[in-house]
Amino acid sequence: MPPSSLFLRACRGEVTERAPIWVMRQAGRYLPEYRAVREKVSFLELCKTPALAAEVTLQPIRRYGFDAAILFSDLLVPLEAMGLEVQFTEKGPGLPQPVRTPADLARVATFDPEARTGYVMETIRLVRKELPAEVPLIGFAGAPFTVATYAIEGKTGKTFGETKRFFYQHPDEARRLLALISDATRGYLLAQVRAGAQAIQIFDSWVGVVSPDDWEDFVLAPTRALVAAVRAAGVPVIYFPNGATTILDRVAQVGADVYGIDWRLPIDEARARLGGDVAVQGNLDPSLLLGPVSVLERRAHDVVRRGGKRGHVFNLGHGITPDVPVENVSALVAAVRGA
Amino acid sequence: MPPSSLFLRACRGEVTERAPIWVMRQAGRYLPEYRAVREKVSFLELCKTPALAAEVTLQPIRRYGFDAAILFSDLLVPLEAMGLEVQFTEKGPGLPQPVRTPADLARVATFDPEARTGYVMETIRLVRKELPAEVPLIGFAGAPFTVATYAIEGKTGKTFGETKRFFYQHPDEARRLLALISDATRGYLLAQVRAGAQAIQIFDSWVGVVSPDDWEDFVLAPTRALVAAVRAAGVPVIYFPNGATTILDRVAQVGADVYGIDWRLPIDEARARLGGDVAVQGNLDPSLLLGPVSVLERRAHDVVRRGGKRGHVFNLGHGITPDVPVENVSALVAAVRGA
Repeated sequence: MPPSSLFLRACRGEVTERAPIWVMRQAGRYLPEYRAVREKVSFLELCKTPALAAEVTLQPIRRYGFDAAILFSDLLVPLEAMGLEVQFTEKGPGLPQPVRTPADLARVATFDPEARTGYVMETIRLVRKELPAEVPLIGFAGAPFTVATYAIEGKTGKTFGETKRFFYQHPDEARRLLALISDATRGYLLAQVRAGAQAIQIFDSWVGVVSPDDWEDFVLAPTRALVAAVRAAGVPVIYFPNGATTILDRVAQVGADVYGIDWRLPIDEARARLGGDVAVQGNLDPSLLLGPVSVLERRAHDVVRRGGKRGHVFNLGHGITPDVPVENVSALVAAVRGA
Repeated sequence: MPPSSLFLRACRGEVTERAPIWVMRQAGRYLPEYRAVREKVSFLELCKTPALAAEVTLQPIRRYGFDAAILFSDLLVPLEAMGLEVQFTEKGPGLPQPVRTPADLARVATFDPEARTGYVMETIRLVRKELPAEVPLIGFAGAPFTVATYAIEGKTGKTFGETKRFFYQHPDEARRLLALISDATRGYLLAQVRAGAQAIQIFDSWVGVVSPDDWEDFVLAPTRALVAAVRAAGVPVIYFPNGATTILDRVAQVGADVYGIDWRLPIDEARARLGGDVAVQGNLDPSLLLGPVSVLERRAHDVVRRGGKRGHVFNLGHGITPDVPVENVSALVAAVRGA
């Protein structure tokens, strides 16, 4: 891997000739070639079959030539490896036996990532073999809070009342659960780095539901510990605090190399709130990909301009949705490259 | 109504001896007496039967002595009056024929509030008769953007892709739809004031999904026009931009008397972002009502302290949830009054 990869230089806060671009959930249902694979296997089979997971990881690189690939996997993979049964249905993920009491903590533990999630590491090794040398591979995991919400709610939360009830009623055990997830995720992400991941994104998809008090009391410490441990392995860490643009001043304490920004704030203002001297990733509203292309291009150019030349990775402010026309993604890539 | 009502004085930004308290969705499923009424009638029947709607409006006042009552009704009532069929199912509201094309605009129109929503005005008159003189009644409606999302999505949105697609593909017609909803809602709210509502809350429940560009291009103008028209009738207007704490500096341009603040930012910081010299309402995380009471009290006291003595209406940062124990609400009221 040449150290001059556009994506890695931007992650390290360097000036780049243009902003590198990838999009969250780029290996996903909006791609006909992805849907063709999914017709043959379930979502879980796809995650657990390295040849297929590697194939869908590579699909968007072949079609669009994105500046980075991201491992195809799921946020709940490490939770299953920690000992909790996970099911995937049409309605999303579900845990038949969520963590609801302090006694339930006995059912979760750290794990050996090669033994329990070897298929993820094998996927990474396969992708690295196939990927052009100049395209880095991003590994990922959920942040401790977001993973904890699945463990406690047993599904994708709505008001996250169960999670907060557990936090308020059992604060010490809640911190123990978050620390345990942080530890397990550290091992999991370091194994990804050893397998060949050249950057790591930590998705805090649901952290937008916490109050500043809860951020301080529960979320910050295990997240910061995880970020520091992965950074110590020598790869840049992108932290994506979805929905938490409101408290970016506090979010900056996480100590990441790059902060993923959702679309709720212009990216230059977001960078200022983070303290000014950090790399940022984002932040086009994914709905702009529904068209028309003229509006998409205008807004994309604005993101490029606000992102600036130094330390900006172009991305959406959230994952691409299944109803996006593939040709609009081509238009986006062209707009960012030609901006 | 004595001009000295605690709630109305706080709304006008005056110093009060303590913060008045009411809670969003205070007439709701957490109350056994509400559930008893709902066992007999559907949600829609309840909204459209003044005697019953008045009864459930009064229930939380009797039980807790809140400092304000809020009309029991639904955000979709004016949309139905504008000409769109609305159904309520167990899964929430649904519109069989949403607004998806410019031609669909022909199916929506302003309306005569006494003729089409007379049951709402009758509810207000009944409540005013029963309510203690020192307890003001708050009328309400959805903000133009939030109502437009129901019109366009046909249900409670998730990614709000349909709404944004309509905005980007048909910006002039989108602005026409928002202006039309703003006009219709103005008439509806002014009728509520004539019927006896002494303050108005405008709920922008979904505005947290818009980018700052969309706020500027679509949301601000029709919202500001609505707020100004209702204020001109002489009642204070509370604007609740749920999820938009990130852009409170822009939200302040709406020109409301009071801004409802969700729980994502301490209320003193929220007030500073709004410009410092406005009244604020909020902002305890509703999940704290799940208990334990010791944490609830500590956090409630913190909100009271941060809200200060001038222009602060105590409330939750979002609606109370059905699983809240009634005794915890008593504890909250006592904590705020004794703070």
